[in-house]
Amino acid sequence: MAAARRTLLLCVNDIGASAGSNSRPFLSHTVPVWQSRAGHRIDRIVRPQDGRFFASSRCKWREALSHQGSDAQPVIDRTRSKLFKDADEAVADLKSGSTIFSAGFGLCGTAETIITAIHKRGIESLNNLTAVSNNAGAGNDGGLAPLTHSGQLTRCILSYLGNNKALEHKYLTGNIAIELCPQGTLAERIRAGGAGIPAFYTPTGVRTFIQTGEIPTRLGPVDPDTQKATVLESGHARETRVFDGRTYVMETALTGDVAILRAWKVDEAGNCVFRYTTKAFGMIMAKAARLTIVEAENIVPVGSIDPNDVHLPGIYVDRIVPATVAKKLELKKTRAADNSSSGRESDGSISSSGSASSGQSAAQGRRNRIARRAAKELKHGMYVNLGVGMPTLAPSFLPPSVKVWIQSENGILGMGPYPTEDEVDPDIVNAGKETVTLVAGASTFDSAESFGMIRGGHVDVSILGALQVSAAGDLANYMIPGKVFKGMGGAMDLVSNPDHTKIVVTTDHVDKYGQPKVVEKCALPLTGARVVSTIITDLAVFQVDRVKGSLTLTELAPGVTVDEVRAKTDASFAVAEDIVQME
Amino acid sequence: MAAARRTLLLCVNDIGASAGSNSRPFLSHTVPVWQSRAGHRIDRIVRPQDGRFFASSRCKWREALSHQGSDAQPVIDRTRSKLFKDADEAVADLKSGSTIFSAGFGLCGTAETIITAIHKRGIESLNNLTAVSNNAGAGNDGGLAPLTHSGQLTRCILSYLGNNKALEHKYLTGNIAIELCPQGTLAERIRAGGAGIPAFYTPTGVRTFIQTGEIPTRLGPVDPDTQKATVLESGHARETRVFDGRTYVMETALTGDVAILRAWKVDEAGNCVFRYTTKAFGMIMAKAARLTIVEAENIVPVGSIDPNDVHLPGIYVDRIVPATVAKKLELKKTRAADNSSSGRESDGSISSSGSASSGQSAAQGRRNRIARRAAKELKHGMYVNLGVGMPTLAPSFLPPSVKVWIQSENGILGMGPYPTEDEVDPDIVNAGKETVTLVAGASTFDSAESFGMIRGGHVDVSILGALQVSAAGDLANYMIPGKVFKGMGGAMDLVSNPDHTKIVVTTDHVDKYGQPKVVEKCALPLTGARVVSTIITDLAVFQVDRVKGSLTLTELAPGVTVDEVRAKTDASFAVAEDIVQME
Repeated sequence: MAAARRTLLLCVNDIGASAGSNSRPFLSHTVPVWQSRAGHRIDRIVRPQDGRFFASSRCKWREALSHQGSDAQPVIDRTRSKLFKDADEAVADLKSGSTIFSAGFGLCGTAETIITAIHKRGIESLNNLTAVSNNAGAGNDGGLAPLTHSGQLTRCILSYLGNNKALEHKYLTGNIAIELCPQGTLAERIRAGGAGIPAFYTPTGVRTFIQTGEIPTRLGPVDPDTQKATVLESGHARETRVFDGRTYVMETALTGDVAILRAWKVDEAGNCVFRYTTKAFGMIMAKAARLTIVEAENIVPVGSIDPNDVHLPGIYVDRIVPATVAKKLELKKTRAADNSSSGRESDGSISSSGSASSGQSAAQGRRNRIARRAAKELKHGMYVNLGVGMPTLAPSFLPPSVKVWIQSENGILGMGPYPTEDEVDPDIVNAGKETVTLVAGASTFDSAESFGMIRGGHVDVSILGALQVSAAGDLANYMIPGKVFKGMGGAMDLVSNPDHTKIVVTTDHVDKYGQPKVVEKCALPLTGARVVSTIITDLAVFQVDRVKGSLTLTELAPGVTVDEVRAKTDASFAVAEDIVQME
Repeated sequence: MAAARRTLLLCVNDIGASAGSNSRPFLSHTVPVWQSRAGHRIDRIVRPQDGRFFASSRCKWREALSHQGSDAQPVIDRTRSKLFKDADEAVADLKSGSTIFSAGFGLCGTAETIITAIHKRGIESLNNLTAVSNNAGAGNDGGLAPLTHSGQLTRCILSYLGNNKALEHKYLTGNIAIELCPQGTLAERIRAGGAGIPAFYTPTGVRTFIQTGEIPTRLGPVDPDTQKATVLESGHARETRVFDGRTYVMETALTGDVAILRAWKVDEAGNCVFRYTTKAFGMIMAKAARLTIVEAENIVPVGSIDPNDVHLPGIYVDRIVPATVAKKLELKKTRAADNSSSGRESDGSISSSGSASSGQSAAQGRRNRIARRAAKELKHGMYVNLGVGMPTLAPSFLPPSVKVWIQSENGILGMGPYPTEDEVDPDIVNAGKETVTLVAGASTFDSAESFGMIRGGHVDVSILGALQVSAAGDLANYMIPGKVFKGMGGAMDLVSNPDHTKIVVTTDHVDKYGQPKVVEKCALPLTGARVVSTIITDLAVFQVDRVKGSLTLTELAPGVTVDEVRAKTDASFAVAEDIVQME
């Protein structure tokens, strides 16, 4: 019984199963003709082993043995220089049906030169590609956008398609398959793929559609009766397992054919150095693919990089090309040069809309009231993650004596405010893809590290917005089925360890239609179940008992009554004896 | 049935179960009295939640919620400076029964200052400690040696006790508990602990005593009948599971109370920079412990370290003390200054015993024959790992045109020869703890990264020695039950991906008693099953068919006959039609 169940689940979750032809078992292959990149035939096949063949001298053991594609994949020749003339040459032997890891966060660190070359190959020559990438491009020509436009990409595994309206439309009309994967899980699956770990357990996505497999991967035509899109390929359910009293889902490794990334500096042995938030996915993707192509802004001789400072060892890099396409800036944000951040070294991505005390609209007044109260959750020295929107306003209400360290899940600890015009650096962006600065004492790291920090509960407080939040602390803030399909990004990971990272929700009490956002049970797909500890709205503050699944009203905004809160809340709640006024 | 089995295994494998009191469930605690380090009582307990309590303002949320020790563990106060006067102050509140992660590889990167302070606390004050550490010290005062001598350490989780004869004796006489864990698995379990991953699957240890739990953790008195030590605590068996046709074992995360490490440079926010091979375990251990204490050779102001160059972000560091105890050098090895390595940039840890062609003993002649043949396995541009002993001789037989990159599993890619006297750097050692150099184009990294590189199959060839090797490619090279208990170090990891990393064994054909080392079936505990592809001895070369489990003799040393090989081999083998002479 146990064995049968395991086998069944294995088929669903298996490594690379999502990558189409890439998962074909080895023994079904005929012996390929090995060729070195330069076109030399391999001189001899040494001996059969394990039903596989490997060739000597012209192609490395690893490559010969790991050959798994349906078409013969590019041969990696250890004996030749890793330097290629240009990206065109480096992608000339890529095969249709390949799985491509595309590095970058938003448009920060994307391999624009290599993507351009893949696009140039054209759909006749190179098609049916699967991309593994945090995002799928932006605009007409940023990141993977050219390949989704051209139709060369037919499947994506990603966490967020965000502002890519064209891709969202393509998915909703059944013209591309998208496997949504939480950002931290995506990073960890890629890391696992590179590190020989076939599967691992994570709290991210437990009791959400990720666990149940309810996010469709590919939609079909609209059903005339229900007026809903049919599902041609459903998501896959994850196994669950309890460790130490907590439930986790099992996630499998991602491996693929080719990784493409952009580095700041690479030596001729392939050792790479990345600048700041360009580290996000390149460092881990290079390890998970059979062939890694790096475009670099600076190609330097071997020995130019101190062994202590290498971010990605050369063993993971097979081909090096010069970066010739300029990097792109997705969301340039600046602050006025006189809006100094001196003395506020950790006040994060303060809205450029101005200080909190200036003349306000009603909406802004609500926002500021919420943000002022949220600031009270932040104590001096804390490490905090602030979601896009209202949460980012909170630090502007901190007294000058309180400094906090702001974590940005794309790979910053110690995020500063928007840059002045002179400080703008496309290699330093926040989780919203906006240009930011780094405070003194900041650090930058890759996405596996960033989400290890988050999932491991090292961040003290995480403040997020909500579409709905329930009496039991369930949070819904990433998806409206059939309408909004943007992906969860890092939100599921950010709420994955609520015993160690306090989850605070900031939200308007009612939505724009006047409907309560604090509800008995969320109707929308969950970001996490029983994760929220404190709810701050423009009317009130609730504390959540995540074990009992109950709410207590503890604070009221000036002039707001318990009855008003009751009328605008779709959940029952207790009222604290010592209820106080929101300050 | 499945559920019952899972539950049973869960109890055995559970996170922290090995850490004794550390695994006690949360809800069994009474409310602790929270104190800040400075002795202030916490001002108020805010509210009960999840059956737990947390305190406001004086102690961070994470600390309050993650409090799990049987004694109240040290409180981490985010509001105060991380700088402590000295190590004595920083360890003053450590509690008996704690699990301590002790960084370093051999004596490279160990927190000598902090260990000295823990030792000074004395066994009355601080005892019953569990150490998680790759090694357990060396000599009388290196690394953890003072704590095993003093009896403060009663349990260790480690991969190698190597030259620590006193500790080996203590184990064999039942005076300390030791859980042996393969080095890469140890690193990955620690990384998982820090990253919120409760368990993962790995190929390392499959079909060995690690899988079956047959390495005793604690021995008892000798049984008068069998004259063998009784087993007071056995090892624990691992679950196995098949992914994509390969078998893996499940390993659980390691978490603990305190991590102690030594950094080269730390800023006052806790951001650390490590030099070269001191990176091995400190960077991952800091993330897995509730409290991390760093001793640093240089304490610098915030802002002194570029955010791009931080190896360990400050979020993981709670206390900083100056390193005042000098670092130790475990095995100083040098080469003569005129024994230049110019033009041989990748020729690795060439034996200091001289060049290969000088006058030789019979034994040395055998060794050189083997090494010369092993060198033929290395092609230009390959990445190779060479075990201690004969394998390290192989590069000296490479023609000058062939350069290979030598990986050392403690965290080097691009290892060079022994240093000259002037080049000796205690922060650069190889897997044998010997001083080495780095070639141009080298890189250094932590142990999770190093064993990800190994387990992931990125290394092309790994050459190891053997106690026994079987016709099916089984390798035994780490343990002689009841006699030799040194640990497997990284050996099980090095052979964990034999489809992608070719495993070559170099060994004398017979042992010092004239007994065959190539056998039908290994009698000694396995390092790995069906992992070896090629066996090179002083008499012959065999190719192994790891699927069929059979040997083929393909080369004979000059003057050696098939009959002689047959007489000295305890396994049947086929003879290749085109058998050639070993060159």
